[in-house]
Amino acid sequence: MVAPLVTLTTDFGTADGYAAAVKGVLAAAAPRARIVDLSHEVPAHDVSAGAWLLLRAAPFFPAGTIHLAVVDPGVGTHRRGLLVELAGQLFVGPDNGLFSLLPLRLPGSPRTVALERGRFPPRPGASVVFDGRDLFAPAAAALANALAGEPADAVRNLDLAAWGRPIDDWTRLAWTEPRAEGRDWVGEVVRIDRFGNAITSLTPAHGRGPLQAAGRTISRGRAYADAAGGEPVALEGSSGFLEIAVRTGSAAERLKLRLGDAVRLAADHG
Amino acid sequence: MVAPLVTLTTDFGTADGYAAAVKGVLAAAAPRARIVDLSHEVPAHDVSAGAWLLLRAAPFFPAGTIHLAVVDPGVGTHRRGLLVELAGQLFVGPDNGLFSLLPLRLPGSPRTVALERGRFPPRPGASVVFDGRDLFAPAAAALANALAGEPADAVRNLDLAAWGRPIDDWTRLAWTEPRAEGRDWVGEVVRIDRFGNAITSLTPAHGRGPLQAAGRTISRGRAYADAAGGEPVALEGSSGFLEIAVRTGSAAERLKLRLGDAVRLAADHG
Amino acid sequence: MVAPLVTLTTDFGTADGYAAAVKGVLAAAAPRARIVDLSHEVPAHDVSAGAWLLLRAAPFFPAGTIHLAVVDPGVGTHRRGLLVELAGQLFVGPDNGLFSLLPLRLPGSPRTVALERGRFPPRPGASVVFDGRDLFAPAAAALANALAGEPADAVRNLDLAAWGRPIDDWTRLAWTEPRAEGRDWVGEVVRIDRFGNAITSLTPAHGRGPLQAAGRTISRGRAYADAAGGEPVALEGSSGFLEIAVRTGSAAERLKLRLGDAVRLAADHG
Repeated sequence: MVAPLVTLTTDFGTADGYAAAVKGVLAAAAPRARIVDLSHEVPAHDVSAGAWLLLRAAPFFPAGTIHLAVVDPGVGTHRRGLLVELAGQLFVGPDNGLFSLLPLRLPGSPRTVALERGRFPPRPGASVVFDGRDLFAPAAAALANALAGEPADAVRNLDLAAWGRPIDDWTRLAWTEPRAEGRDWVGEVVRIDRFGNAITSLTPAHGRGPLQAAGRTISRGRAYADAAGGEPVALEGSSGFLEIAVRTGSAAERLKLRLGDAVRLAADHG
Repeated sequence: MVAPLVTLTTDFGTADGYAAAVKGVLAAAAPRARIVDLSHEVPAHDVSAGAWLLLRAAPFFPAGTIHLAVVDPGVGTHRRGLLVELAGQLFVGPDNGLFSLLPLRLPGSPRTVALERGRFPPRPGASVVFDGRDLFAPAAAALANALAGEPADAVRNLDLAAWGRPIDDWTRLAWTEPRAEGRDWVGEVVRIDRFGNAITSLTPAHGRGPLQAAGRTISRGRAYADAAGGEPVALEGSSGFLEIAVRTGSAAERLKLRLGDAVRLAADHG
Repeated sequence: MVAPLVTLTTDFGTADGYAAAVKGVLAAAAPRARIVDLSHEVPAHDVSAGAWLLLRAAPFFPAGTIHLAVVDPGVGTHRRGLLVELAGQLFVGPDNGLFSLLPLRLPGSPRTVALERGRFPPRPGASVVFDGRDLFAPAAAALANALAGEPADAVRNLDLAAWGRPIDDWTRLAWTEPRAEGRDWVGEVVRIDRFGNAITSLTPAHGRGPLQAAGRTISRGRAYADAAGGEPVALEGSSGFLEIAVRTGSAAERLKLRLGDAVRLAADHG
């Protein structure tokens, strides 16, 4: 029987010891769980960046995985804590939209409950400003313990109501599907990655034509290396969205692309 | 029986392979130990930052945890290596103050020995400039092997003298408790975290009044979100110290606060 | 039986979710493998930096370790995938030189095959721009599964031809051994680390004399702390190369040293 997997996604960085404290809580409360860092380098307070990270990573994890994610500028307010089950995986963290993009890439319908503080024994010295350590990590540990020894698909049958109050009004991030303009589609830049690739809300399903962004036309290609001589290329990125890239350079810098910039997919006249 | 946990805290970064080499030594010498990164992003040579990280994280780890920590500008000099037992956890690293703040938050009295090089078989090709890899990691691995299969609280009874020479003059970092001035308390900024929160040496036990810092009065609040309209707020941080925060912004930047700046807790006239 | 160890070395950073997706694939396909991060902070597209990281870390890992490394600017082109066995360890990644420095520090002769895509079941939705996730991680997982339960030295007898086509023309990075000039040796700066130490291609075997670099003479020492008063010192670094260091400062900044700068080891007249 493989020990439960608990992944961590935060905007804590590692230098201050916040992420380390969360790991301590997990190690103490669920000693058999395997802890896997996804990232502690989500930009501070950037819920959208955290949501994108989870969108890109979660589809590759096995059923039974518990994802603990904390990007939580609203800690200490009345924002709720959340437990989500989707595609046989569990997500624990603040109800601020962090998990709301997952249905774009994970199949099925999410089941959601508002985590209730009273369900977990309060930690001595619990702080109101660190739910990651004092609420979400204990919840993830308790879930890991509950799932230990169970088959991976036990999550699909997990009685979430034992952990909190079922809700269906969880917070969702704004997400705008591309809109049709005549035979064109107009989307936007939704993410810029470490390599300077500008990821758009468009997908290959919107057409095979070139993209128009930053006042120029960008032809379609297949791989980063198809961008010859510093020219940008539009290709299908690894999460299925069209992205604008420059070979071993930053397309975002080259074209001065920013989040929210419009990107038009011209109708394919082929 | 859960495998021993070995945590890592260094200022190595990860890009050069120093942290990776330490992990290799641990994996080779203690294959059943579970390695958990606390951080490799302690600022280079910043022993105080490393000590604060451990102070904030260690209280949450279970008894039996082995913490390997290396922020070691004095490597290759006569500075001693150290093994500390405190609260049933073990700490291995240089004797330069890195572990000296732990008694502020961990109960009990530390037992300390100067690690003796001859107790571990010398690694072939051992370097005088990398004790993290060639002295401390082998020591941590040997400790993990010694503790494997033992109950977690075996650490409290571990014969440290088998590992080095008992000492009581280990190096301590300067730590200044707040001082009383009339009915006020005067402390200082001891840490600035990733979010720009300025952590002070004051605690709620010093009083309920407002803080005075950077030439202004900062009212008390409970959570980061209590800081309205960009105003700073003073609240109890997650490690029990009072800190100065700005909602989703950097209090340190806003108020130009720096390490060592005086912070006054005005007497509570309530 | 200890579970197989899979290490990760990439230039993905962690904030975008690329490294996280790789971990998901490993966790799903090889649930018993233990995942160990070496680094995700290799500078983007810097194959040479990745090769140096592996050179410094791999010698310390035990036989049987599987190293998955992806610094892959050529993804989507005809560059091959590679599986290398050296010193009882396995290396999986692109054939672009990333593993080519290993023979400088690992004993024996590398065995190399070009990974063949058809040997692994194609992942649904596999992308042509993310071989790290869709080719190399599945290969590493399959190797981990094949080695599970086997003794660590089984790797030396692993039939690599079952995984790809044997090749002996794998891509090698340029590596220039120091050349003799009269009784001197002339090498170069090959790496600058996080601390600003400038690592050279020279070793103590080239002589005991001082180094000449950046227009000045740098005396030999033993440890970083031997660099008195901000003066640079030349010492044997932890991987056996001579390096130029400044005590708790950056030698590279102080001396304006850059990659490729010539470094002369003056003949020892002792």
